[in-house]
Amino acid sequence: MLIGRQTWFFNNRPVILSAATVGGPFEAEGPLKDDFDYLFDDAWLEASSFEKAQQKLMEEAGDLAISKSNIKKDKVNFFISGDLINQVTPTSFSAKTLDIPYLGIFSACATSAEGLALSAAFLNTGGADYILSGTSSHHAAAERQFRFPNDYGSQKPPTAQWTVTGAGCVLIGKQGNGPNVTSATIGKVVDLSVKDPFNMGGAMAPAAVDTIVTHLKERNIDASYYDLIVTGDLGRIGREVSLDLLKKQNIHLPEKQFVDCGLTIYSEDQPVLAGASGPACSAIVMYGHFLKRMQLGEFKKILFVATGSLHSPLSIQQGDSIPCIAHAVSIEMGSDQ
Amino acid sequence: MLIGRQTWFFNNRPVILSAATVGGPFEAEGPLKDDFDYLFDDAWLEASSFEKAQQKLMEEAGDLAISKSNIKKDKVNFFISGDLINQVTPTSFSAKTLDIPYLGIFSACATSAEGLALSAAFLNTGGADYILSGTSSHHAAAERQFRFPNDYGSQKPPTAQWTVTGAGCVLIGKQGNGPNVTSATIGKVVDLSVKDPFNMGGAMAPAAVDTIVTHLKERNIDASYYDLIVTGDLGRIGREVSLDLLKKQNIHLPEKQFVDCGLTIYSEDQPVLAGASGPACSAIVMYGHFLKRMQLGEFKKILFVATGSLHSPLSIQQGDSIPCIAHAVSIEMGSDQ
Repeated sequence: MLIGRQTWFFNNRPVILSAATVGGPFEAEGPLKDDFDYLFDDAWLEASSFEKAQQKLMEEAGDLAISKSNIKKDKVNFFISGDLINQVTPTSFSAKTLDIPYLGIFSACATSAEGLALSAAFLNTGGADYILSGTSSHHAAAERQFRFPNDYGSQKPPTAQWTVTGAGCVLIGKQGNGPNVTSATIGKVVDLSVKDPFNMGGAMAPAAVDTIVTHLKERNIDASYYDLIVTGDLGRIGREVSLDLLKKQNIHLPEKQFVDCGLTIYSEDQPVLAGASGPACSAIVMYGHFLKRMQLGEFKKILFVATGSLHSPLSIQQGDSIPCIAHAVSIEMGSDQ
Repeated sequence: MLIGRQTWFFNNRPVILSAATVGGPFEAEGPLKDDFDYLFDDAWLEASSFEKAQQKLMEEAGDLAISKSNIKKDKVNFFISGDLINQVTPTSFSAKTLDIPYLGIFSACATSAEGLALSAAFLNTGGADYILSGTSSHHAAAERQFRFPNDYGSQKPPTAQWTVTGAGCVLIGKQGNGPNVTSATIGKVVDLSVKDPFNMGGAMAPAAVDTIVTHLKERNIDASYYDLIVTGDLGRIGREVSLDLLKKQNIHLPEKQFVDCGLTIYSEDQPVLAGASGPACSAIVMYGHFLKRMQLGEFKKILFVATGSLHSPLSIQQGDSIPCIAHAVSIEMGSDQ
């Protein structure tokens, strides 16, 4: 399975059997509104706190992915998931409700790809029959934890990004109909000394590029192998920086081959500054939007590169720069599909 | 590799090639002081914050485990680790310093066993040649995050536990000399509605028992298969509750076969109330103490069951009960060792 230092090749081609995404009212105003399985009218989801609302988002996406797959829940071996709230409570509490053996993970907004990579690795090697993997975020829960009390209404610079309210989840199996997970590259932590938590895209770009370059090298393929390279949530600034850094590595991507989830989920006239972010961003856009376009035959091979900023409010207060990571997973339609 | 719903059997028997543990001045006063590779005189470790001191603990343990193994760092495929500080920053920052591709995980004080289980699963199936896995905690960083500002000097009930300052780490490979990792059971989240964060042992006991019972059933073995069952950090109360719950499942363990890391690392006269806790507790006691006793021939088969409370200060403030988890990993000496 291991090719190179940090890349897995999945010769048994685990299959994404089903995917489900849910969002909130702000997501319902965006261009992907028809891609969601369910959109909640109210950001509270009738819960008593934003954190509990986030838990419900994860539970809904998980339940929907399971029911769409027609696999019975007690046949699912593991729930692999995490989120960005302190001590990952929305996910851990949802793991209790979902009642599936639970492997908690953490890589901030790169959680979706870490979960997909681990799931595929286990399914490729007989470590599971079925795995549920996904992640969630909630705008209001993230705002008050990472930034300021929501009621302050504090202003942000144009480099800031908007945390998505929602969850995206996939059920993956060893065989069946659906897109195949064919390889994954686990990222290294990269830190080029950006200290501004309102410019996470700029901070994460070098990690995204490091993982993409390593992936292509260890798989011994050219970037043109993929119809699309879909990054997590670099936003406007991070995407530009990444394209520049890739050029320096002699990788010249056409603009339309390099798309970012953080620039896909909202429309130009939604006030999200440099784009979207949050663990749910990449999960929703990849699992809710691009997987559908793959199944419609629009794309055959996508490299999904979720990116994460591994800072905390405390690490910023203590003057630290932002360590970042990106994990890459390749998703391909079988030749007979 | 999969036997039962949530248990892996590792027929290729991955090997713990080296282990390293470090601690602080309070740990140096305990009965395991000679088991540590390094004990720091001062809890600050010359860092500018307790969180950065924790990062240094993880880096030291990681570097020591690598150097003791004689494996070059660039041959190590993955660093699998996590901790309990908000957004797992001590671990993520140490992943940057260690410069090894990083899989972040989260299961509170069960992190050690989750990391060991994942590592063994990858090594068993050709997903890696070498993996570094471990975890850390710092008493002062945990106190001020989970409880009260240290300066308050607030009192605690006798059911409370003392967070260990230290880190424990192992380097695991596909073959070589050392104890073998032979199976692992990934836990479910169990919550019996305990709401008191000063009684984590009582909260975690049902999760520990659920995982032990599932492990024995899915491996189709009797508890007597193991010389020892070593639990994470149940402490005095959690251990008693667990023994009672096991009896109800018709598993009658002799007292001396059922030991707890939280009751091993400190002496009776250290003021730790119901025992020790923190992710480092189980990592240090298992990797620093019991592995040595296995290698001396005292024990041949140990079931290592790390336990975690998956709450946050916020979830407690919001009135939630404490969801808990336990992961079990069996470690056995080869017949020729």
